[in-house]
Amino acid sequence: MNYYSLVLVVVALVWALAAVAGDPDILGDFIVPAPMVGMPPTNITSDFFTYTDFLAAKEYMPWPPQYFIVIKANMEVFPALNGQSVSYAMLVFPSRYVNPPHTHQRAAELLFVQSGALSVGFVDTAGKLYTQVLVAGDIFVFPKGLVHYQYNQGPNPATAFSAFGSAAPGTVNVPASVFGTGIDDAVLAKSFKTDFWTVQKLKAALTPPPK
Amino acid sequence: MNYYSLVLVVVALVWALAAVAGDPDILGDFIVPAPMVGMPPTNITSDFFTYTDFLAAKEYMPWPPQYFIVIKANMEVFPALNGQSVSYAMLVFPSRYVNPPHTHQRAAELLFVQSGALSVGFVDTAGKLYTQVLVAGDIFVFPKGLVHYQYNQGPNPATAFSAFGSAAPGTVNVPASVFGTGIDDAVLAKSFKTDFWTVQKLKAALTPPPK
Amino acid sequence: MNYYSLVLVVVALVWALAAVAGDPDILGDFIVPAPMVGMPPTNITSDFFTYTDFLAAKEYMPWPPQYFIVIKANMEVFPALNGQSVSYAMLVFPSRYVNPPHTHQRAAELLFVQSGALSVGFVDTAGKLYTQVLVAGDIFVFPKGLVHYQYNQGPNPATAFSAFGSAAPGTVNVPASVFGTGIDDAVLAKSFKTDFWTVQKLKAALTPPPK
Amino acid sequence: MNYYSLVLVVVALVWALAAVAGDPDILGDFIVPAPMVGMPPTNITSDFFTYTDFLAAKEYMPWPPQYFIVIKANMEVFPALNGQSVSYAMLVFPSRYVNPPHTHQRAAELLFVQSGALSVGFVDTAGKLYTQVLVAGDIFVFPKGLVHYQYNQGPNPATAFSAFGSAAPGTVNVPASVFGTGIDDAVLAKSFKTDFWTVQKLKAALTPPPK
Amino acid sequence: MNYYSLVLVVVALVWALAAVAGDPDILGDFIVPAPMVGMPPTNITSDFFTYTDFLAAKEYMPWPPQYFIVIKANMEVFPALNGQSVSYAMLVFPSRYVNPPHTHQRAAELLFVQSGALSVGFVDTAGKLYTQVLVAGDIFVFPKGLVHYQYNQGPNPATAFSAFGSAAPGTVNVPASVFGTGIDDAVLAKSFKTDFWTVQKLKAALTPPPK
Amino acid sequence: MNYYSLVLVVVALVWALAAVAGDPDILGDFIVPAPMVGMPPTNITSDFFTYTDFLAAKEYMPWPPQYFIVIKANMEVFPALNGQSVSYAMLVFPSRYVNPPHTHQRAAELLFVQSGALSVGFVDTAGKLYTQVLVAGDIFVFPKGLVHYQYNQGPNPATAFSAFGSAAPGTVNVPASVFGTGIDDAVLAKSFKTDFWTVQKLKAALTPPPK
Repeated sequence: MNYYSLVLVVVALVWALAAVAGDPDILGDFIVPAPMVGMPPTNITSDFFTYTDFLAAKEYMPWPPQYFIVIKANMEVFPALNGQSVSYAMLVFPSRYVNPPHTHQRAAELLFVQSGALSVGFVDTAGKLYTQVLVAGDIFVFPKGLVHYQYNQGPNPATAFSAFGSAAPGTVNVPASVFGTGIDDAVLAKSFKTDFWTVQKLKAALTPPPK
Repeated sequence: MNYYSLVLVVVALVWALAAVAGDPDILGDFIVPAPMVGMPPTNITSDFFTYTDFLAAKEYMPWPPQYFIVIKANMEVFPALNGQSVSYAMLVFPSRYVNPPHTHQRAAELLFVQSGALSVGFVDTAGKLYTQVLVAGDIFVFPKGLVHYQYNQGPNPATAFSAFGSAAPGTVNVPASVFGTGIDDAVLAKSFKTDFWTVQKLKAALTPPPK
Repeated sequence: MNYYSLVLVVVALVWALAAVAGDPDILGDFIVPAPMVGMPPTNITSDFFTYTDFLAAKEYMPWPPQYFIVIKANMEVFPALNGQSVSYAMLVFPSRYVNPPHTHQRAAELLFVQSGALSVGFVDTAGKLYTQVLVAGDIFVFPKGLVHYQYNQGPNPATAFSAFGSAAPGTVNVPASVFGTGIDDAVLAKSFKTDFWTVQKLKAALTPPPK
Repeated sequence: MNYYSLVLVVVALVWALAAVAGDPDILGDFIVPAPMVGMPPTNITSDFFTYTDFLAAKEYMPWPPQYFIVIKANMEVFPALNGQSVSYAMLVFPSRYVNPPHTHQRAAELLFVQSGALSVGFVDTAGKLYTQVLVAGDIFVFPKGLVHYQYNQGPNPATAFSAFGSAAPGTVNVPASVFGTGIDDAVLAKSFKTDFWTVQKLKAALTPPPK
Repeated sequence: MNYYSLVLVVVALVWALAAVAGDPDILGDFIVPAPMVGMPPTNITSDFFTYTDFLAAKEYMPWPPQYFIVIKANMEVFPALNGQSVSYAMLVFPSRYVNPPHTHQRAAELLFVQSGALSVGFVDTAGKLYTQVLVAGDIFVFPKGLVHYQYNQGPNPATAFSAFGSAAPGTVNVPASVFGTGIDDAVLAKSFKTDFWTVQKLKAALTPPPK
Repeated sequence: MNYYSLVLVVVALVWALAAVAGDPDILGDFIVPAPMVGMPPTNITSDFFTYTDFLAAKEYMPWPPQYFIVIKANMEVFPALNGQSVSYAMLVFPSRYVNPPHTHQRAAELLFVQSGALSVGFVDTAGKLYTQVLVAGDIFVFPKGLVHYQYNQGPNPATAFSAFGSAAPGTVNVPASVFGTGIDDAVLAKSFKTDFWTVQKLKAALTPPPK
């Protein structure tokens, strides 16, 4: 053993020690939703713990898919997850589709490719890009809070399941948040070190049409 | 001081760090494993964030499966999960197989049935049993810490993916813990309100053979 | 119900929410229970922080005890514990009594033997059994979430106090959860590697009579 | 609406409120850094708890400032903060400068404008932009994990102090992460719904020069 | 009070509960306060995230200050901080003023001296006193839960900003808690190893006048 | 590199681990202490989970007790508690003894009076004093972080057991912290609104003699 490796051990341990913080938990088996006024309380049967929308979605999904389809099993649509700190999403990618750069504020994403292939990537806070080409059966983890994307480069659809360590992981879509929400042109031009014309072109492409 | 004791120090510290640095929020993007003495530190590339054992397992798995197969993607085998609070398991059930009653101490389990069908159940702390028959595409949540099981009642294999809200959910197998670990016959007979002969029969069936 | 009491409900709830919605711990000194509709709010005096049921129980307890007696001081019966992450239980064991294998999902148990002697044990997730004979004055810790039991092997009663690091530790009674809740015979026979006759005998012994 | 349903509401809410607890934190007063090999351990005096780089920076800062200056008082540079869940940053904006859209993964930011004025904004996960013009003395909170920016629109410099509820809040700079890290042109063109030429122009502007 | 407002109350509470009962942090971008009965719900605009009382205070503050002034920006007065785990306080010290020994139960304090100078100190649990003289620009951290004070020894006023890693850090003022709340003379005389006369003198000085 | 510095490394790491590895949820059944350099690792048997010092103390304790005796079962003396978030203390009060005002930074205290009687009190952050006279069998909770005391007013000894929701609750003794650590007379005189002579008298009584 040498001096250098020991220093590495110590540095790594100190760094890892820094790497801790908090957590609570619910104080019951599960959380029963509060009833709405004038409505009977939720009747807790096995169905409360069952979620069938992935199944339903698959049955009615055109194949090959024409659009990117995300079906979430989070606590908003599956209330039994409240307090259980876990959720799922099913992702169906048409050929050539990109799920644009985004972050999840409250969870890492553990993506499992069920069919097809996906080119994925994330950027750490030091600005290093990690990319990988995943085939069916592969798993990839996008660390918590970092910008990441998935790209189906090939001619066939791809299907993936993502698990999250939160019942409500949250999603910040980067292009839409930045260019689709009305942030001042000057702020964007300076931030992206570009001209107003480019900013306006990007805004035009990414601003959702009025409802 | 000698080499051996230093290795012990480092192994113990790494183990202890593994035991603490995970599900509480980390204070960095991800946790780089501490290098072993005399070994170069882990080279963090995209492969560090990729897990391919599900894929490998599927390729070499006899079909129909003869045994219950569990392949885990937790932080023990996939160190990038340390600190990311999420993990996966792939479960392959032969026909008629039961995954016996067990608990996970540190996470709820969100089970997705990929193929086949499963009869599942869990018991809450009030002693109420919740059962469900799941078909391919269904999702079911087993709340944190409660006793649950899965049963493939049918003639065909079943495959499921489970997501956990911890990188190290932990598993307490109930029959093996209770009848396979040498707990005194009197304790078990009184606990299960039965006779010594029954206890010994169950112990004989559930005690693992000496290695 | 009148306007005033509803305002109180809402104020108390808002206050209580403020007390819980932020950081992991509560955000006030203690949590005042929300008043019931039409009832005055809890009057917070010293009595709110005092629990006298251990004392009452002792005074009226036949000695030697004929039954296993557990008196809990958790947040269900002692609301001041809500948010304080600690609770107690008093355990009184008749001679030869076994407190059957069980787990607490949300806390380790720190058992102090006050009188008599207890044989205790727990099983770790690797399937290793740890047993100990405790005498009056001894303390033993059952780690969080693991299966454990206590057995009063001797001719005299035993009394113990257990502290928990949660105001609501939760209890999963293993024999009752597994054999007393109606889990399918096939599931249990396969899980315990035994025959239907044995399963039915255990179920008959452990199923609570209908109320 | 009737009395019964309101009671149910309240009971359910009280029960749900009970459903919280938690917390970790360090288990000592503060964390003493591990000494480096061959070096004496950190001598813990009052200086360990004192940070003087803001002061030093101010003394040597040209005025008016020519560049955006960020001086952080986080646990990387001020180790006493480890385990204390709080940190600071001092921000000095030249006239017309924009601190580009970014997120902090592990903390909300509480910005206090000390001198000058700042136009700030953040985007919530529903895509709604919140903007404000802040003058000296104003405080603004950027919720945890959301994209936000600050812009000094005026002719004078502006100074701000930001507090974070983490000793290591982390920063994801959006333009640099997306256009400065080598993400494939096709991914970016599809994500931003633009052409390759625009992507390459943005990349050229935002990619840091090789060191 | 009408039906509509009650429904709003319940919806808001259910939403807020969903936001707290699960994972460690809040499960939404921010927490919208529940509306009071008969009042419209909080209209969430940028002003909800802005706090202007520091500014207002400064404008109306006599200079030099005659009294110690503390203006808090915590979740009680700035509800947007609920769930964001951070808060501020502005402290203005007249010449010779002491902010008496106190603790914050839920947060460390990170003090930044803006103008003037302050002598500060804290005592760790081993009874070691750490003192420091801070000048404008210095930062000092008072670790969580420890007794600390600030003293403006000089002839000029001093201004400081303190950041806390909690939206509700809590304050226990030591002299007032001990001598100003009616604790029995015997308890205090024995605790401080002094006579009744001294206790009564301190009580007289520190007991707030009846309102 | 030399032996001495390595021992320092290890001691510091073990200490630091102790400082962080506890109340956050651990990711294993229990935490095995890191072995010291040159020593074999801790052999984990049932004795690791057993603590016998309460028993030993009782056997050798003079009765009636002449001094206040506190025997702690926390993670410092009982390492198995590390990560289990719970600890005990046994308190033996001579007649007329006061356990002076103090706080625990990291846990509420749940006090059970085993014999004798105790007058107890705590002060909330609004300055309200809550007092109670407890008799054998009573339980009282001192909420987390608040100043509290116990007083044995009667002629007989009193014994109590306290449970804490942390393996390392921490103790800040108020009189000793304030008057026994060398805080400047002027700070104390101003804080307690008294004269230097009184401060010096209190300091003389409460400053521990030099060792």
